[in-house]
Amino acid sequence: MWGASFYERASRLFQQYPSLSKLLVVATVSGGGLAAFHEGRPFQSRTAYADAAQPEGESKKKKVVVLGTGWAGVSFLKNLKSSSYDVEVVSPHNYFLFTPLLPSITCGTVEARSIVEPIRCITKKKGLDVQFREAACYKIDPQNKKVYCRTTQDNNPCGKNEFSVDYDYLIIAMGAKANTFNTPGVEQHAHFLKGVEDALKIRQSVINCFERANLPCTSQEERKKILHFVVVGGGPAGVEFAAELHDFVVEDLAKLYPAVKDDVSITIIEAGDHILNMFDSRITKFAEEKFTRDGIEVKTGSQVVKVTDKEISTKERTGHVSSMPYGMCLWATGIGARPEIIEFMKQIGQGNRRVLATDEWLRVEGCNGVFALGDCATINQRRVMEDISHIFSKADTDKSGTLSLEGFHEVIDDLMERYPQLELHLKSKQMSSIHELLKNSSGKYSSTEVDIETFKSALSQADTQMKNLPATAQVAAQQGAYLANCFNRMEECEKYPEGPLRFRGEGRHRFHPFRYKHFGMFAPLGGEQTAAHLPGDWVSIGYSTQWLWYSVYVSKLVSWRTRVLVVSDWGRRFIFGRDSSRI
Amino acid sequence: MWGASFYERASRLFQQYPSLSKLLVVATVSGGGLAAFHEGRPFQSRTAYADAAQPEGESKKKKVVVLGTGWAGVSFLKNLKSSSYDVEVVSPHNYFLFTPLLPSITCGTVEARSIVEPIRCITKKKGLDVQFREAACYKIDPQNKKVYCRTTQDNNPCGKNEFSVDYDYLIIAMGAKANTFNTPGVEQHAHFLKGVEDALKIRQSVINCFERANLPCTSQEERKKILHFVVVGGGPAGVEFAAELHDFVVEDLAKLYPAVKDDVSITIIEAGDHILNMFDSRITKFAEEKFTRDGIEVKTGSQVVKVTDKEISTKERTGHVSSMPYGMCLWATGIGARPEIIEFMKQIGQGNRRVLATDEWLRVEGCNGVFALGDCATINQRRVMEDISHIFSKADTDKSGTLSLEGFHEVIDDLMERYPQLELHLKSKQMSSIHELLKNSSGKYSSTEVDIETFKSALSQADTQMKNLPATAQVAAQQGAYLANCFNRMEECEKYPEGPLRFRGEGRHRFHPFRYKHFGMFAPLGGEQTAAHLPGDWVSIGYSTQWLWYSVYVSKLVSWRTRVLVVSDWGRRFIFGRDSSRI
Repeated sequence: MWGASFYERASRLFQQYPSLSKLLVVATVSGGGLAAFHEGRPFQSRTAYADAAQPEGESKKKKVVVLGTGWAGVSFLKNLKSSSYDVEVVSPHNYFLFTPLLPSITCGTVEARSIVEPIRCITKKKGLDVQFREAACYKIDPQNKKVYCRTTQDNNPCGKNEFSVDYDYLIIAMGAKANTFNTPGVEQHAHFLKGVEDALKIRQSVINCFERANLPCTSQEERKKILHFVVVGGGPAGVEFAAELHDFVVEDLAKLYPAVKDDVSITIIEAGDHILNMFDSRITKFAEEKFTRDGIEVKTGSQVVKVTDKEISTKERTGHVSSMPYGMCLWATGIGARPEIIEFMKQIGQGNRRVLATDEWLRVEGCNGVFALGDCATINQRRVMEDISHIFSKADTDKSGTLSLEGFHEVIDDLMERYPQLELHLKSKQMSSIHELLKNSSGKYSSTEVDIETFKSALSQADTQMKNLPATAQVAAQQGAYLANCFNRMEECEKYPEGPLRFRGEGRHRFHPFRYKHFGMFAPLGGEQTAAHLPGDWVSIGYSTQWLWYSVYVSKLVSWRTRVLVVSDWGRRFIFGRDSSRI
Repeated sequence: MWGASFYERASRLFQQYPSLSKLLVVATVSGGGLAAFHEGRPFQSRTAYADAAQPEGESKKKKVVVLGTGWAGVSFLKNLKSSSYDVEVVSPHNYFLFTPLLPSITCGTVEARSIVEPIRCITKKKGLDVQFREAACYKIDPQNKKVYCRTTQDNNPCGKNEFSVDYDYLIIAMGAKANTFNTPGVEQHAHFLKGVEDALKIRQSVINCFERANLPCTSQEERKKILHFVVVGGGPAGVEFAAELHDFVVEDLAKLYPAVKDDVSITIIEAGDHILNMFDSRITKFAEEKFTRDGIEVKTGSQVVKVTDKEISTKERTGHVSSMPYGMCLWATGIGARPEIIEFMKQIGQGNRRVLATDEWLRVEGCNGVFALGDCATINQRRVMEDISHIFSKADTDKSGTLSLEGFHEVIDDLMERYPQLELHLKSKQMSSIHELLKNSSGKYSSTEVDIETFKSALSQADTQMKNLPATAQVAAQQGAYLANCFNRMEECEKYPEGPLRFRGEGRHRFHPFRYKHFGMFAPLGGEQTAAHLPGDWVSIGYSTQWLWYSVYVSKLVSWRTRVLVVSDWGRRFIFGRDSSRI
């Protein structure tokens, strides 16, 4: 699979498009990019599901409650086809937000309305029975299968503010909040970039700084302070904001604020050694060099320890603490669990974890009928070593106490599916099959028999290959589609389970476990240049990649309305520039 | 002039366009509308200026300070051509807002960004030396020719918050605020519709009501309350909002909120006998009938006496007071003076007036070099009877004590220009000239001599024809253009005064006094129907007038950017409907 040709890979990249997108064929063949747009179905091949929820064959429809309308929740709703559920969606936002374009809103490259789509419009098209409630869930009661919700409107005096909803299946897709690492002053003085409101506030704040700097009562020294924009966190969001801001200043604001344009400075503070450290080092290097040319200061190895209304204090690796004055600060260092999720984790005995854990079928461990996906959860991958003796005895069909490598064939596919770390382990050892691994371990190349100790020692290193999935839109969307597909085929798979063998029990798992397919990552760097890191260590940087980025993002947008609006926003920006009105 | 053909009138209607608009020729010939778009110059023919500010022939540039960036201020800036001034603009908004489309923002027919244009973009194009400061003027000191300003940003700790600006000429164009008539609870609970922020808040509030009504904890009875939208004031703004809201509900929200759509109600409360009472009675009747058909309740003769968080109390003419529950209330009853203007009026001895008074040259009475225009001021038209003996003695060239009607010819044009109420008075008497009036009064049709008493009695009724100008964008824009034209020709008119005779002094006034030309009014009534009241009592109602409205408003927009955006917004609305995301 990993050896597939580039064209196959590029093609897989653009799966999961809305039904009409086959009409949009934009092929951008360039120094490094080809984007072929076609209608793709949500990937189903190796995905699967397990037996958390027991369909009891009742005629009454099961009630599915979805908490959240981000990538995970909406992907679930868009892919749910079965009409055998009553769906109720609860979210504080009555729209889906296309988060990858959020940094573009901060400087007006794209308008906020162009990248949101009302949930009701999305579900109406599906023709399913979906109710939406604009409210925030503040408590989950898994014993009584109930969620407690509260309206987010604080100024409407009519009616009650709270209600509860019963569920048969609960899908927790509430996302995460910005992580301040308890740094003092961040909540009060820094901006975050999680929602539309954040982005609009940032946009206003940038213009505020320019207007403020332009007042006659502002001294030259103060002007430099006010126009110092600081981004904390060198991940994709922070880097993209810095790039957008730089473009906005150079392309638009410099002409309108000629008196203050030379006082603008942008600094990115990153605790690690490099910005964009989840990307390939070629991209990191390119980005750092480009930013240096653009005059954006990249301050690595530096940790923010305190933010006040006027200054940001940083601590270097040497222990030296220094302060810098600033006008606006964006905090983009990562995500943390939301308070309601932390509360729920305490209830279900996960209080000592940092993030809600699910199994490979996205089921919350210890709760019947509760699923969690997207940024609010991580998959707790089963260790091979936990089950090693059960695996051995399943494979040892003749119960001889030793494993014949020929007989082992029967369980090998199930083993590889159930424990995906094995595949990575083999890859890291540059081996083609598990037989090779076992043969190597047994020390006797001619032997075809393996005992339990040899088996254990052969697989003992595999679990070190386990990795958590990144908290990205891509992961959340795939999880939502996977779960919807499981719900669609619940009855069918009940009769004919398609998952791997149960090594600890009898029979097979009902569904294939969730498996993430990485289709690559983009990092827009400003000045019409973007870097892309695609699977197979394929890297593309430059103007052509920007067009690939445009194409991919347009095709990924949730509706034709948003596609048309985003494209016309880009056109407007090319012709008229970005708007600098402070509204 | 009033007898001019319809085509001349329609043509005058579309004067004062930005330079490029000649390219846009949209002719809409219909049941009642023809719109011919052409490039028109700001009207100059009968406008003039007086001798408030003495150009002293200095080489140093005079400093002009403009307070406000609404219709009046921006019209002044756009029409100022002379480079002999240093211009500094102070306004809390760094953009110009095209207010006639403000009601369209409240329901998302047009986006807010589409109808604003940054002031810096407007002045940059002119190539003049214009500084913009985003701040609010809180005090004017006419003795020392200084204005005191303060930043409107409350959360930026850097630098000082206040500064002062010296001026040689001050142009007050700060607009007005909504008038609550001190009705209790209005400030706290009602929405206004003066700025972009107001319109965006209303948009969010409408969606809030629908989401709130859609919660399971909201009873049927509460739902009806929450979805009761009340508009106080039956003027164009209130009526247009009610129409927009009705369209939004019927065309878009009814599909997305099917469970609650039948609980929506809209009420317009008007203290007078009819809504749109400044329009022709045919329009009023049409609007009231259309609203009744649409299910919008029009409650006339009813005055709001109190607003609480849940209820609006109204008082009928009978004295009966009743209350109605509501979900959202728009207060659109008219305008009042801003506190800074009231403070300034007290300083200059106008404390007993309700609104700042200027003379016919837009000069603030009693202040040297201070002008006021737009909604913040009214023109205090000079009365004929105040000057009647001076007029008589000017006209009585041979100082005989009687006026020869032949000799009177010399002053008649000046008289008509200085006192425009005379023209209205003649019109109301259906007379063609002032000679006829004097002859009638003298009682002797054959006589050609008039003594002072006859002269007085002939003109005594003329002053009853004086009317204040309406507080509209049209008036403000014409005043701005007029004043800019005066500033452009300051030196020229100093040497060769072009205004009317000074009846109380020697020589002529430097400029013609300001004279308003009414080009008609639109009242959009929803459902793609608009009513137009054009000069000469010409009325047009219906679908065709909607297209006239589209055409006129597009052509009047301040820049090509906003034109393109508004047209694409309308297109988007036709294709995709209005967005109901609560952002």
